Amino acid sequence: MKDIKLASKESGTKRTIIEVNGVRIGERLVVIAGPCAVESEYQLMKTAEAVKKAGADMLRGGAFKPRTSPYSFQGLGLKGLKILEKARKEFDLPVVTEVLDSRDVNWICEYVDVLQIGARNMQNFSLLKEVGKVNKPVLLKRGMYSKMSEWLNCAEYILSEGNPNVILCERGIRTFETYTRNTLDLSIVPAVKEISHLPVIVDPSHATGRVSLIKPMSLAAIAAGADGLLIEVHYKPEEALSDKDQQLTPDQFQELMEEVRELYSNMK
Amino acid sequence: MKDIKLASKESGTKRTIIEVNGVRIGERLVVIAGPCAVESEYQLMKTAEAVKKAGADMLRGGAFKPRTSPYSFQGLGLKGLKILEKARKEFDLPVVTEVLDSRDVNWICEYVDVLQIGARNMQNFSLLKEVGKVNKPVLLKRGMYSKMSEWLNCAEYILSEGNPNVILCERGIRTFETYTRNTLDLSIVPAVKEISHLPVIVDPSHATGRVSLIKPMSLAAIAAGADGLLIEVHYKPEEALSDKDQQLTPDQFQELMEEVRELYSNMK
Amino acid sequence: MKDIKLASKESGTKRTIIEVNGVRIGERLVVIAGPCAVESEYQLMKTAEAVKKAGADMLRGGAFKPRTSPYSFQGLGLKGLKILEKARKEFDLPVVTEVLDSRDVNWICEYVDVLQIGARNMQNFSLLKEVGKVNKPVLLKRGMYSKMSEWLNCAEYILSEGNPNVILCERGIRTFETYTRNTLDLSIVPAVKEISHLPVIVDPSHATGRVSLIKPMSLAAIAAGADGLLIEVHYKPEEALSDKDQQLTPDQFQELMEEVRELYSNMK
Amino acid sequence: MKDIKLASKESGTKRTIIEVNGVRIGERLVVIAGPCAVESEYQLMKTAEAVKKAGADMLRGGAFKPRTSPYSFQGLGLKGLKILEKARKEFDLPVVTEVLDSRDVNWICEYVDVLQIGARNMQNFSLLKEVGKVNKPVLLKRGMYSKMSEWLNCAEYILSEGNPNVILCERGIRTFETYTRNTLDLSIVPAVKEISHLPVIVDPSHATGRVSLIKPMSLAAIAAGADGLLIEVHYKPEEALSDKDQQLTPDQFQELMEEVRELYSNMK
Repeated sequence: MKDIKLASKESGTKRTIIEVNGVRIGERLVVIAGPCAVESEYQLMKTAEAVKKAGADMLRGGAFKPRTSPYSFQGLGLKGLKILEKARKEFDLPVVTEVLDSRDVNWICEYVDVLQIGARNMQNFSLLKEVGKVNKPVLLKRGMYSKMSEWLNCAEYILSEGNPNVILCERGIRTFETYTRNTLDLSIVPAVKEISHLPVIVDPSHATGRVSLIKPMSLAAIAAGADGLLIEVHYKPEEALSDKDQQLTPDQFQELMEEVRELYSNMK
Repeated sequence: MKDIKLASKESGTKRTIIEVNGVRIGERLVVIAGPCAVESEYQLMKTAEAVKKAGADMLRGGAFKPRTSPYSFQGLGLKGLKILEKARKEFDLPVVTEVLDSRDVNWICEYVDVLQIGARNMQNFSLLKEVGKVNKPVLLKRGMYSKMSEWLNCAEYILSEGNPNVILCERGIRTFETYTRNTLDLSIVPAVKEISHLPVIVDPSHATGRVSLIKPMSLAAIAAGADGLLIEVHYKPEEALSDKDQQLTPDQFQELMEEVRELYSNMK
Repeated sequence: MKDIKLASKESGTKRTIIEVNGVRIGERLVVIAGPCAVESEYQLMKTAEAVKKAGADMLRGGAFKPRTSPYSFQGLGLKGLKILEKARKEFDLPVVTEVLDSRDVNWICEYVDVLQIGARNMQNFSLLKEVGKVNKPVLLKRGMYSKMSEWLNCAEYILSEGNPNVILCERGIRTFETYTRNTLDLSIVPAVKEISHLPVIVDPSHATGRVSLIKPMSLAAIAAGADGLLIEVHYKPEEALSDKDQQLTPDQFQELMEEVRELYSNMK
Repeated sequence: MKDIKLASKESGTKRTIIEVNGVRIGERLVVIAGPCAVESEYQLMKTAEAVKKAGADMLRGGAFKPRTSPYSFQGLGLKGLKILEKARKEFDLPVVTEVLDSRDVNWICEYVDVLQIGARNMQNFSLLKEVGKVNKPVLLKRGMYSKMSEWLNCAEYILSEGNPNVILCERGIRTFETYTRNTLDLSIVPAVKEISHLPVIVDPSHATGRVSLIKPMSLAAIAAGADGLLIEVHYKPEEALSDKDQQLTPDQFQELMEEVRELYSNMK
């Protein structure tokens, strides 16, 4: 880990705590929830209302979607950002959204609170440098093929450009196992914490790709020491334009939140 | 999962509970602990005493060791079994040991309570058929390259020979990540439970290969719904003949047991 | 590679050449062909006749089959060995067959010329030790999850018991790619040759699992420096009891042999 | 492969042949060679002279380098492009260089003949769309974690924007094997050719990461049906600023070219 400097505990930096409109990531458990993609104002507002009610701390939703096929729904773009902004105000929820292009970084910052770098762009170094220059926290997903050392080096790209606010997010790596969409690598949570001072959260939705596994893996993530969760919730998952099989209903999310909060309070 | 018959919940079998000298696996949390290998009577007795004191339910220890190199310590064989038998009586701890050869199955049964099939022998079908014929529970480790469906088919080999008492054990799969020895796939725990009625335990020692990660991953395993843990403990890990870096000291194990028991009681 | 002693070029051993009834493996290109499993006398004799006619050097055929499910065809056992022996005499083809159980090693030797250790048993160390004690060459397949160093250590197990005649066989490793059954790792061929003096052959049938890819990968294997090929051929693949999609027809094998022989003669 | 439309043979498109200043990729074997990175005018000119003399068809060299660490040499940028342009004229070699940022696509086109999308950016969809809009062929490397279907979908992103000239390049995938830098998946070459009409070349330098394996894997690639090779050559590899262990000397490259050309002519 010799190249890891600013992101390393050896830099002397204390555990990084990132404040986003009063939500303090790294200090207490933070749950970010929302749909895979912003599909319409109605869909987002209904979902945002539900996750707020269940106790989510932040809202997620993709306006620009990195889809395997060019013929799949690519997201609503600017229109999606405006819908996110509306939900942000209406429900007093800080908003996280993915940025795909270095040209979009600056103007997207006007609409959202946290910029997400997705797994496919983890080593898009131009994009990393660009988000390193802005004044917004960055949620950096681990690439599906990436070693811990490479992931921390990507954080280092952002930190070395001047932005100290990086939230790491484990979202499953690619293996031979096909029952789950990816293989959630929870060992990386305590592993990151012994090397780095950055907060690390877990996305069991993309990792498992199965509704039935999201709650147990959320609980496991908390027990492993994660600083938070990123959970896909849709007010009607069966009508979702992407990731149908891994979005929770509001009721499922409510149940998850109750168990997660209880476990977390017992572990303190 | 069409080939999974006897091991499947669809068989109508209720959750399997396996009783080993009063320890009921599948009913309440079971912790199996002990050294990687039986190295001497002194080493095993000291370690057995420590794990008993800390509250372990069963004792593990290898008498036949499947080592990568033919020039590494291969285990004490029969002498090791006799030492295990002694510790078993002295500390009233049921004993688990690995069997490597179909010729050894019958006579090893006279010394131990549970036969372990190691990851490298998961698809040693001759051995599976042989342990399917005896009257001892089998702890079946997942191969480091094996899909859940293949693992359950290996359980099916044992069940179809007449032995219904199979304990599945996740011990990490092989991926590109090198920080940990293997990648612990905790999602497999709730995944197995939605397909099969067999109990499933977790071995964080082999999975992580790092002392510092064993406690957090033990807690995560419990939170994910595991029925038990398999933990390597050595009274002096620094002098171990194998797996030095992943065996806990008695003190570390004591601390792990306390946190694990507390978490488990809070989750009920 | 510090543990690799007898299998290493550093041992001072010249390139190992293994003679089997006049076939010299390691000296010139050797092609081993035949069905996945011996299914009947008629099937084996018809297939053996075809591969002999096309120029195969040796005959393969499984009498004991390591199948994922206990409910799949497990091979004809002794009856299959007797059929192999008959074909061996009739067509003057040395025979390779897989051995699954350490108890069977000695008596199987009476029927065949080369013992095969399959991928799933690569680290079945009891079996390796047993085939290390007999006077027959061993074809050692690489495990689907195994590093070169581990594979060579398995050869070391055999060599250190006194049997110097080990033929290594690359048959594809397990990765995330699903288009092919496994991922054929041809780089291992020149890699093995820079570390070890043992001959190495390639099995493109199991590696690709697709008839259409077997010829190009056979040619690639020769170009990479392989000492031979292991090719699945069935006189009627559509009626095969296992591995239907990867067995060549006699005509396809004839065509493969012609191109392979031509490429090999051009490369000398 | 249902999403693959324009890149599919089922589209009715004949095998794509891409002409770059007289070099016809997809028609006859094309070898692209040059250093990992442009380091200085002297280094590039000396290397270009050597690869031209040995018979390379095109020159490669990175001006923008995607490095794991932000503290490693990041390339000469515009200065590097100007050096490439000079070598291009001096030695009449079309030039391939990597583009990392969607903002750079247009102006880089003024200096080079082929734009490369690196493995880490394979699913940088913004960049793919951008290179889909320009009038230069694109060399699209396979991501180290990517399935064939995902790779072809990335080609589809480029084709669907209007640019029909995509050259696919296999460069090794990430597996558990550590002897080689990556695992070269040569089966993908005939596999791509049965699904798509696009040309596919092979990069054995990044795949193996070892000078000793580059020639055998180049020969194997030709035998597997590859349309060309991408080979790293440096006039003094021991002084290279990146990828020291996988760049050939001019003499090694000369020898490789001779054997490759001979094999190719024998295979026609």
